[in-house]
Amino acid sequence: MNRDVLSRLLPTMSDQGFDAVVAVSPENFAYIAGFVVPSQPLMRWRHAACVVTAKGQSALLAVDMEESTVKAKAQDAQIRIWGEFTECPMQALARLLSDLGLSSARIGIELDYLPAGDFATLKKYLPEAEFLMAETWLARHRQIKTPREIDLMRRLSRIADQAITNAFAGVSPGSTEMDIAGGLTNNIFSLGAEQFKLMIIATGERSVFPNVGPTARALAPQDICRVEIFPVINGYHAGVCRTAQVLTPPPHAEEIWRNLIECKYLILDMIKPGASSRGVYEAFIGHLAKLNLPPIQFVGHGIGLHLHEEPYLGMYSDTPLEAGMVLGIEPLVYDTGYGFGMQNKDIVVVTESGCELLSDFTNTDHLLTVS
Amino acid sequence: MNRDVLSRLLPTMSDQGFDAVVAVSPENFAYIAGFVVPSQPLMRWRHAACVVTAKGQSALLAVDMEESTVKAKAQDAQIRIWGEFTECPMQALARLLSDLGLSSARIGIELDYLPAGDFATLKKYLPEAEFLMAETWLARHRQIKTPREIDLMRRLSRIADQAITNAFAGVSPGSTEMDIAGGLTNNIFSLGAEQFKLMIIATGERSVFPNVGPTARALAPQDICRVEIFPVINGYHAGVCRTAQVLTPPPHAEEIWRNLIECKYLILDMIKPGASSRGVYEAFIGHLAKLNLPPIQFVGHGIGLHLHEEPYLGMYSDTPLEAGMVLGIEPLVYDTGYGFGMQNKDIVVVTESGCELLSDFTNTDHLLTVS
Repeated sequence: MNRDVLSRLLPTMSDQGFDAVVAVSPENFAYIAGFVVPSQPLMRWRHAACVVTAKGQSALLAVDMEESTVKAKAQDAQIRIWGEFTECPMQALARLLSDLGLSSARIGIELDYLPAGDFATLKKYLPEAEFLMAETWLARHRQIKTPREIDLMRRLSRIADQAITNAFAGVSPGSTEMDIAGGLTNNIFSLGAEQFKLMIIATGERSVFPNVGPTARALAPQDICRVEIFPVINGYHAGVCRTAQVLTPPPHAEEIWRNLIECKYLILDMIKPGASSRGVYEAFIGHLAKLNLPPIQFVGHGIGLHLHEEPYLGMYSDTPLEAGMVLGIEPLVYDTGYGFGMQNKDIVVVTESGCELLSDFTNTDHLLTVS
Repeated sequence: MNRDVLSRLLPTMSDQGFDAVVAVSPENFAYIAGFVVPSQPLMRWRHAACVVTAKGQSALLAVDMEESTVKAKAQDAQIRIWGEFTECPMQALARLLSDLGLSSARIGIELDYLPAGDFATLKKYLPEAEFLMAETWLARHRQIKTPREIDLMRRLSRIADQAITNAFAGVSPGSTEMDIAGGLTNNIFSLGAEQFKLMIIATGERSVFPNVGPTARALAPQDICRVEIFPVINGYHAGVCRTAQVLTPPPHAEEIWRNLIECKYLILDMIKPGASSRGVYEAFIGHLAKLNLPPIQFVGHGIGLHLHEEPYLGMYSDTPLEAGMVLGIEPLVYDTGYGFGMQNKDIVVVTESGCELLSDFTNTDHLLTVS
């Protein structure tokens, strides 16, 4: 169990009117329990749950085929196992909650994750309990990372950054996008990631597409190459994107890149406790507009156990930034109008006085070069 | 839209009492619409829905940032877009259903996917409608693949099979698990997969662990190497696992492998329309027991838009097999007791008279060899 997280959650639980909170999503299970039950994100019927009571008790529920994994990872926890083919997971959860004295308690649960059918079953087995929405409260806590979480995000950010830059260094004109993918995958694992999500490899005329994987396309001089990846450890993600030219830049690329990097530094200068999330976005848009380039809806967002978390640095909301927030910031233009797209995505943590760049392996002041 | 799927769903919709069905999970959206909305499986709040009425109308709902993708992929469909930061997706879905004349209809929806909070919101915006569970009916249809789906599963099975065998051929004693991963990733993409799930690379003493990724472990003579991967195209998965020895087999490996491959052929011989899913499992367990090896809960399962689908070839249920079912079959022993594990996973389709092996690239009669 993550003691640092528990010590933050417990003091505010009663204020929310929760006698207990049940985390049922993969991300909030990992947030509190400290690890991912491997098959939970892959098969949503293999329910896992982490129960925490306002009195400080905690317990885990997991499916039988994950029993050995869960027992190895949570040696300090009370663990209840349900049988995949022989038991109803919601009945098992109701029993666990009853055994914890919660059969008529006020229970916070994630109504933005638990399927409607399962929720109805749970209520049937626990008719006296009152269920309340807990997802907003959990998400609010997850916005402010603990020192342990920041260390992990720093590690993940550097893995992504180094893996991409070294993958560019390992290819040359004539190599294919698949060659970049092979090198990148190798780097991601050798640098310590458990897995990864969203490998984007978009080169040449394909660099204008937001989310595309690698193809057999061969790199040619003056190509622009956009590469992004999200390594994952213990359920946490950090996404980094780097852009390279092949040998020399195509027309307009250097000017656009210079603007994007000016945007990067503008954003880094503005991010500090109390700064307005929308203010940062508006400053970015204002600078990008000097190139007459199309705006994007947001230039950054929280990141951690989910690919996107609050707050967004965008036009639709305004949140004062706080120390401990970890943000992805990504000045980008998918379609420059010149047949290529460019993007630079970094991860930063808001510190007491400003921010720290976590993806600090690569110097992005100039376009990387594949040679 | 997948016309072959619609032509199967429509005739039985009224029998179920559905005036319309709304697919809201990534897999059932892809089943009917024919493509995956890229961010839907990654961020569950980016709701997408596919509505089909008993009268044969259909419409799609998707989030604004996926608008260009959805419009490019579904040029024949009515498409409704909702704004991620400006609209409630359930209100948008309710409006779409109202516009289709369904505001007081009987609507089948996936209650095993739609979060409880979203379902409550949808009911609030559509108070006269009656919502019914549609997931069992959809899953039942998905069990019997169309010819188009079988072709795709054949393609995916061969990609996985060839990618693994070629990755083994590309390494030698002293190479690392990461080298296998790099080659495997390269092969998966170059053979045409859009992405992949669950890359398992478990060698030597690590071959006893069910679900582990690659490490820096170097291959040594007499290692056993278990490698599994699930390439993905249009949301469909096929999983193949192959096992190799490094140079020569460790003691007992050849005998155990011979038994597992005998199990493979036993299973292939038994799979045909009308065969009992539990009967196939029991025959497997009976043969495996000749080696005094530990039993597993199931030796196969349906596969397609989800990693596991019904029917299971296992001890807890009995389903007569039907032509068109696609099954993963995986004789395996994670821990042989001799310091290694072995697994052979193939994909088969049930034909009118028996079954066809879809993962037919590699001859698995003898252990593959890394040399």
